[in-house]
Amino acid sequence: ALSLASVVLAASLSPEEQIKTRQAGYAFMGWNMKKIKANLEGDYNPEQVKAAANAIAAIANSGMGALYGPGTDKDIGSVKTRVKPEFFQNMGEVGQIARNFIAKADALAAAAATGDEQGVAGAFAELGEACKACHTKYRAD
Amino acid sequence: ALSLASVVLAASLSPEEQIKTRQAGYAFMGWNMKKIKANLEGDYNPEQVKAAANAIAAIANSGMGALYGPGTDKDIGSVKTRVKPEFFQNMGEVGQIARNFIAKADALAAAAATGDEQGVAGAFAELGEACKACHTKYRAD
Ligand code: HEC
Ligand code: HEC
Repeated sequence: ALSLASVVLAASLSPEEQIKTRQAGYAFMGWNMKKIKANLEGDYNPEQVKAAANAIAAIANSGMGALYGPGTDKDIGSVKTRVKPEFFQNMGEVGQIARNFIAKADALAAAAATGDEQGVAGAFAELGEACKACHTKYRAD
Repeated sequence: ALSLASVVLAASLSPEEQIKTRQAGYAFMGWNMKKIKANLEGDYNPEQVKAAANAIAAIANSGMGALYGPGTDKDIGSVKTRVKPEFFQNMGEVGQIARNFIAKADALAAAAATGDEQGVAGAFAELGEACKACHTKYRAD
C-alpha cells in the first residue's frame, strides 16, 4: 500500500522536482554521515551522533523510491542527474540494495541510541558500504 | 555541548556547502510536508504519514543552526541564498522560532505515530505556521 501511494503522490512532483528532491535527501544524509565520522575520529558526542543517525534513518525510510519516476532518468535542461540508466533496468537489484541500506540505517540509529561508540563505529562502516553498493553500480562519477 | 560541537564540526563544511546543505534539508522537509498534505486531502495512509513526519522531525532535530556559519549570509558566486541579513542580526528571536519549530515537528511525529488523522491535521497546521514564522521574517521571496 505504501509503495502505491508513494507513486500516486510522486506524480504531483515534476520530474525536475523529483531529481532535486532525491539529491536533497542524499546531500542531507551525506552531511550527517560526515558528522558521525568526525565524532568517531575526534571527541564523541552521543547526542549529536544520535540526532545525525536519526536523520539518516528517517530519510532512508521516507520512500525515496517515489523520486525515481518516469522522466527522471536523464538531465532535464539545467537539472542534471548522476543516476545511471542501469538503475531503471535493474529495479529488482536496486530494491535489494535499497532495502539493505534501510536496514543498515536503522541499525546505525539503534546503535547510536545506546550511546556505545564501538557499536556505532561498526554500524557506521556497514552503512557506508550500503551507500557505496548503490553508488558503484548506479551513480555516475 | 551539542551546539558547541556543531559549530566545530560545521567548520569542516565550506560556506557554499553549508548553504547547499541547509537548502537540501528544507527542500526535503518540504517534500514530506507535501506528502502529509496530500494524505490529509485524499486517502489517509498512516504509514506514509508516519514516515514523512519522522523525516521532518529528525531533520528539524539535526542541528541545522550549524549551517548558518560565517560567510553564509549572502550569495557566493553561483551558490545563491535566500536568507535575509536580519537572520544574523536577531539570533535570539531566530533561536526561539527554531525551538518552536522543533517542538511542533516533534508534536507532528507524535500525532502521526498514533495514526489519528484529526490529531495529525491539527499538528500539521501548527507546524506549517512554525515554518512560516521564519520565512515571513527571515527568508527572501
Ligand atoms: C538505492 C541507491 C542509493 C543508495 C542506497 C544511496 N545512494 Fe547516494 N545517490 C544515489 C544516486 C542514484 C545518486 C544520484 C542522484 C541524482 O543525481 O539524481 C546519489 C547521489 C548522492 C549524493 C550527491 C547528492 C547531490 O547533492 O547531488 C550524495 C552526497 C549521496 N548520494 C550520499 C549517499 C549516502 C551518504 C548514502 C547512504 C547513507 C547514500 N547516498 C545511499 C543512489 C543511492
Ligand atoms: C529558523 C528558520 C526556518 C524554519 C523554522 C524553517 N525554514 Fe524554511 N528556510 C529558511 C531559510 C533562511 C531558507 C533559505 C535558505 C537559503 O537559501 O540559504 C529556507 C528555505 C526553505 C525552502 C527552499 C529550499 C531550497 O530548495 O532552496 C523550503 C522548501 C523550506 N524552507 C521549507 C520549510 C519547511 C517545510 C519548514 C518547516 C517544516 C521550514 N522551511 C522551516 C528558514 C527556516
